[in-house]
Amino acid sequence: MKKLKSIYIGVIGGGGCSEDVYKLAEEVGERVAKAGAVLVCGGLSGVMEAASKGAKKAGGVTIGILPGTDKNEANPYIDYPIATGLGGGRNLLVIGNSDAVIALPGEFGTLSEIAFALKSDKPVIGISTWDVSEKIIKAKNAEEAVKKALDIIGL
Amino acid sequence: MKKLKSIYIGVIGGGGCSEDVYKLAEEVGERVAKAGAVLVCGGLSGVMEAASKGAKKAGGVTIGILPGTDKNEANPYIDYPIATGLGGGRNLLVIGNSDAVIALPGEFGTLSEIAFALKSDKPVIGISTWDVSEKIIKAKNAEEAVKKALDIIGL
Amino acid sequence: MKKLKSIYIGVIGGGGCSEDVYKLAEEVGERVAKAGAVLVCGGLSGVMEAASKGAKKAGGVTIGILPGTDKNEANPYIDYPIATGLGGGRNLLVIGNSDAVIALPGEFGTLSEIAFALKSDKPVIGISTWDVSEKIIKAKNAEEAVKKALDIIGL
Amino acid sequence: MKKLKSIYIGVIGGGGCSEDVYKLAEEVGERVAKAGAVLVCGGLSGVMEAASKGAKKAGGVTIGILPGTDKNEANPYIDYPIATGLGGGRNLLVIGNSDAVIALPGEFGTLSEIAFALKSDKPVIGISTWDVSEKIIKAKNAEEAVKKALDIIGL
Repeated sequence: MKKLKSIYIGVIGGGGCSEDVYKLAEEVGERVAKAGAVLVCGGLSGVMEAASKGAKKAGGVTIGILPGTDKNEANPYIDYPIATGLGGGRNLLVIGNSDAVIALPGEFGTLSEIAFALKSDKPVIGISTWDVSEKIIKAKNAEEAVKKALDIIGL
Repeated sequence: MKKLKSIYIGVIGGGGCSEDVYKLAEEVGERVAKAGAVLVCGGLSGVMEAASKGAKKAGGVTIGILPGTDKNEANPYIDYPIATGLGGGRNLLVIGNSDAVIALPGEFGTLSEIAFALKSDKPVIGISTWDVSEKIIKAKNAEEAVKKALDIIGL
Repeated sequence: MKKLKSIYIGVIGGGGCSEDVYKLAEEVGERVAKAGAVLVCGGLSGVMEAASKGAKKAGGVTIGILPGTDKNEANPYIDYPIATGLGGGRNLLVIGNSDAVIALPGEFGTLSEIAFALKSDKPVIGISTWDVSEKIIKAKNAEEAVKKALDIIGL
Repeated sequence: MKKLKSIYIGVIGGGGCSEDVYKLAEEVGERVAKAGAVLVCGGLSGVMEAASKGAKKAGGVTIGILPGTDKNEANPYIDYPIATGLGGGRNLLVIGNSDAVIALPGEFGTLSEIAFALKSDKPVIGISTWDVSEKIIKAKNAEEAVKKALDIIGL
């Protein structure tokens, strides 16, 4: 009765973002959900909210791994908030639980997540984000990013 | 569009347990799921597995908060495993994410979870478990335990 | 040039305590320091402060492992504060870094530390504290507690 | 009797490094110790070991914040090892406990530490390391790096 665990795709990026990036994140979330993967993110605003909103629009499942201790801090598109009380340390859990990570524009928190992903050999697909390593697989748009993430995971 | 976050009920107890306790945990999980709450547990064997199995039998949702870094270590009845890499520190996340905790027989790990729950004024319903405080609400069986948990949460 | 790492003795107990317990903790700290061991504690008030004060009186070294992110929250008798940002999770680090633990009266936080120590087979010497297991080695006073801690460590 | 807490300077960089970087890290550690600050690092090999070795040569104090649960994994130049069991999450504690951070060449772990430091507005002095932000204060050598760190802290 052992069943295949769900595939989690992490979407990371700024807690504040431009309208364009918000739309991009929303489309990423939508495509992740349409592919049948669970969306994992940091559960808060900006890119995290947009990606969750997109995933819910497509009927997907969203998990938000929060920095604080109150699971009600999650944005309204999170199905399953996980409060960690770890502050920025929750970034490691976002990465650690993702089978692949799609990185959008963001600040130093996003950079820390990219660094942790690369350190643990987790696939990172980047759209206009921190260009710190050749190991980051570049994508031009949401469609290409999600396609590359699924290819790498083997779906 | 702000929606009510799900209610999480934590079930804690030994990673190894007798057949009787396994059946008890299974019934607790089943009743939690029938009430419409999400079952949260440590994601591994014994009481955690039994409660998850019961919840899935009743069509519920199960979250397993794991000590290690590999989400595939979860038992087969976990829908959404969360790997933490925190070792025993994951016990705090099990408690911290539960709106109420049902404690079954267990060893020192269970005792640490009860202690954390009491410290943070989280309701603890105990069935034949560590009797360390008057603040633990006693229940004789699964039915009474889940009923008391729901009452306290206000469902 | 490999040198022997220092021996750490953890002292745990309430963040608030009676004058009698304060004096007891102070004497425990003093005896730990006189034995040449490093005193490890949670770095805050009550038993933690008293033990640190006693250790400094005897010229010892004190480490305070703090729940918050600001190392200046340590009590004034802590030589080396370590801010963790882990909240109650710092209790695991207090235990995990101690070669033996002396437990004084305390509330649920202390109980969680005793539980974690017992779970990881760390020696626990208890003076008038939570009586939850035969594995807790009982001591009548500070002298006996520190003596038993040193004996177990093999000093 | 409130005393000034010690000043901690964090030194970060690769767990493996060239001989040149090892010498550089050793000199950084030596100068940190001569200035009277406590050296904080990740407690393991490479830059961490070299900096600790340098600090001890100058009679300083060294704290190593370790990823694992065994404090004996620290390099032999660490006075006060702190085992965290947090894996890569210990990087946040290295940064969080440092009043200023000196970053030497390193890989993605070092990048994650730089990102966390910048995110929390902690001063970062970089020598030939990841050049990801204008907020990193550049230094040409050990002398300049330690001088800039002390200036920023106000010593």
